[in-house]
Amino acid sequence: MIGTQSPVLAVLCGDQHPPDMDSIEHAAAVRYTDEAGLKKALHGADILFVYDFLSTAVPGAWEAADKLRWLHIASAGVDPVLFPGLRESDVVLTNSRGVFDDAIAEYVLGVVLAFAKDFARSRQLQQERTWLHRETERISGRRALVVGTGPIGRSIARLLRAAGLSVAGAGRTARESDPDFGVVHASAELTTHLGDYDYVIAVAPLTEQTKGMFDARAFAAMKPGARFVNVGRGELVVTEDLIGALRDGRPAGAALDVFDTEPLPSDSPLWTMENVLISPHMSGDFIGWRNTLVEVFAANFERWRTGQPLRNVVDKRLGYVPSGSN
Amino acid sequence: MIGTQSPVLAVLCGDQHPPDMDSIEHAAAVRYTDEAGLKKALHGADILFVYDFLSTAVPGAWEAADKLRWLHIASAGVDPVLFPGLRESDVVLTNSRGVFDDAIAEYVLGVVLAFAKDFARSRQLQQERTWLHRETERISGRRALVVGTGPIGRSIARLLRAAGLSVAGAGRTARESDPDFGVVHASAELTTHLGDYDYVIAVAPLTEQTKGMFDARAFAAMKPGARFVNVGRGELVVTEDLIGALRDGRPAGAALDVFDTEPLPSDSPLWTMENVLISPHMSGDFIGWRNTLVEVFAANFERWRTGQPLRNVVDKRLGYVPSGSN
Repeated sequence: MIGTQSPVLAVLCGDQHPPDMDSIEHAAAVRYTDEAGLKKALHGADILFVYDFLSTAVPGAWEAADKLRWLHIASAGVDPVLFPGLRESDVVLTNSRGVFDDAIAEYVLGVVLAFAKDFARSRQLQQERTWLHRETERISGRRALVVGTGPIGRSIARLLRAAGLSVAGAGRTARESDPDFGVVHASAELTTHLGDYDYVIAVAPLTEQTKGMFDARAFAAMKPGARFVNVGRGELVVTEDLIGALRDGRPAGAALDVFDTEPLPSDSPLWTMENVLISPHMSGDFIGWRNTLVEVFAANFERWRTGQPLRNVVDKRLGYVPSGSN
Repeated sequence: MIGTQSPVLAVLCGDQHPPDMDSIEHAAAVRYTDEAGLKKALHGADILFVYDFLSTAVPGAWEAADKLRWLHIASAGVDPVLFPGLRESDVVLTNSRGVFDDAIAEYVLGVVLAFAKDFARSRQLQQERTWLHRETERISGRRALVVGTGPIGRSIARLLRAAGLSVAGAGRTARESDPDFGVVHASAELTTHLGDYDYVIAVAPLTEQTKGMFDARAFAAMKPGARFVNVGRGELVVTEDLIGALRDGRPAGAALDVFDTEPLPSDSPLWTMENVLISPHMSGDFIGWRNTLVEVFAANFERWRTGQPLRNVVDKRLGYVPSGSN
C-alpha cells in the first residue's frame, strides 16, 4: 500500500497505541515506539507524533533526528519537547490546541462548586453517617481570576461567567476589553491584583516566565477564603510554598490536577490535607479524548501530505500557539 | 412602643430565634414560641410566622387559632402546614418563594458536575493516596429533565442550560415553548419520557398528585447511566424503591438533599451506597439565608400592616403559589 515516497512517521507511545490510525497507516510508513526505541525510530523519520505527551524522552534521542521536519504533540502544553535542540532546529512544532478546552472548563466549574457547596465535607460526614446542616456559599457574583489567556483559559472564563461568576484574566500584556475576559491584568503585576479574587485558576503555559509564578509571595497576596485551582502545569507552582500557604489557610483550599512530579509521590503532604482536592492530571480527558487527539493529528497530517499549511503551529520562542493563529 | 392596635404575631421557632426582628417588634406584639408553647401563643394571635419550617406542630395546635388571619412559612414548600384545618379556614397562607431558587440551582449544577467528573471516586482515591487516571464525562449536550416548573425548577433549568446541558421540564400540563424549559412534559406521562434524560431532577411541590411519583416503575424507565437528583421533598420518592433501583444500577447514581425521614436514620442503606451523594437538607441554605427569610416576611408584614395585598399567596387547593402571582 505504501509507495516509496510515503513519509516515515515515528509515533512515540507506550504499550497503548493510539486508536484509529488506519487512514494514517495507509499514507505513511508508521514506526510505533516506546521511549527505549525512540532513537532508532527517529533515524530517517520525517515526522514525530508524540502521543505519549508526558514523555521527557525526546531531548535524549534528538541526535538521531536526521531527517525530521515536523513534530506534533498530543497535548496543549509543549514544555516536554521545547528544549534547545528543537528550538534551534527548523523542525515545525504543532500541538493539540482545542481538544481539552471545554472539558477542562467543566472540571474547573465543578471544583468551584465543590468548594462553594462544601462537597468534600458532605462526603466525609456521609461516611460517618452524620447529619450536620451547614450554610454554604453562593457562586453567583464571586470573582474569579484566570491566569492564562489561551484557548483553555478562555473556555474557563466563558463557562464561569455563564454560571454567574465575575471573571478577569491575567496574561502577558494588560488590556481592558478582551472579548472573553473583559479586563486582563499583566502577569508581571499578578500579586497586586490577586487579593481581589475568590478563585484563582492557573492555566498558563509553562515557560521561563511562568515557572514558579505561584510562590509564597503570590499566595500571601490572596484574599482570605480564596481557593486556588491548578489545571496548567505543576511547575507553575512552588510546591513547598503552596503546602506552607495551605497550612496557613491562605489559600483556604486548592484543587490540583497537575503536579511538579507526576504521579504525585505517595509521601506528599498534599494527599492528606483537608482543604485540597487532588485529581491525577485528567481534567481535560473526557471519554473519547484519545480518538479526538488522533483526529487532530490526522487532519494536520492530511494538510502536510497535501502541501497545505499546518494548523496549531507553536511559536517556539513564546512556547505556545499565538492567538489569532490557525 | 406598641399601641393597643398592634397585631399579635406568634413566631414558631426553636431555641434559635429569627435574626433582624427589630423592625417587626416595633410594630407587633411578638410571641416567640417553641412547639410545646404553640397553642398558648396561637390563642389570640393575628399572624403566625412559621420560622421553624420543618415543624409539624401546627395541625395539633390549630384549635387555639381563634383569631388567626395569616400564616407565613419560611420555606418554599408548604406541605408541613397544608392540613385540612388550614385548607378549610379563611387564613391566608404565604411562603418564601424566591429565596432558595438560585442557591438550589447552583447545588444541582454542582452535583451534576460531581457525577460527570467522578469527584467522589477522586476523593476516595485521594484518601488511599492512589494516582489513578480515568476518563470522565462531558456535561455539554447532556440532557436534563427538571420535574417541577415552579421558580426553583426554572432557576435550575436556566443554570443547567447556561452550563451547556439541554433541558426540558415536567409539570402539571404539557406545553411546547415554555420560556425557561422549552418543552414541558405532563408529569402524568413521566415514565414515557424519563428514558431520554441523563439527569432527572425532582423539585416538584409535595401534593397528593406528586407524592411517591418516583417509584420502581419510574426508576426502571430511566436511561442506563442516568443520575437522579432530589432537591424537592423526600416524599416525592418511594425510598425503598429508590434503594432497590440504585442497587440495580438504574439510576446509576443519586444526589439526595431531602428524605422522607429527616434526619436520615443512621441505619439507612443510603448512607453507604457508593453511587449516592447525601447532604442534609441544605441545598438552598446559603450563608445569609436566615436574614433573607426574615426580610421576606418583614416585607410582607409591612404590606399587611398597611393594607396592601400580600405577596406569595399559596393556592391552598394546588399546594403552591400559582405562576403569574405576585
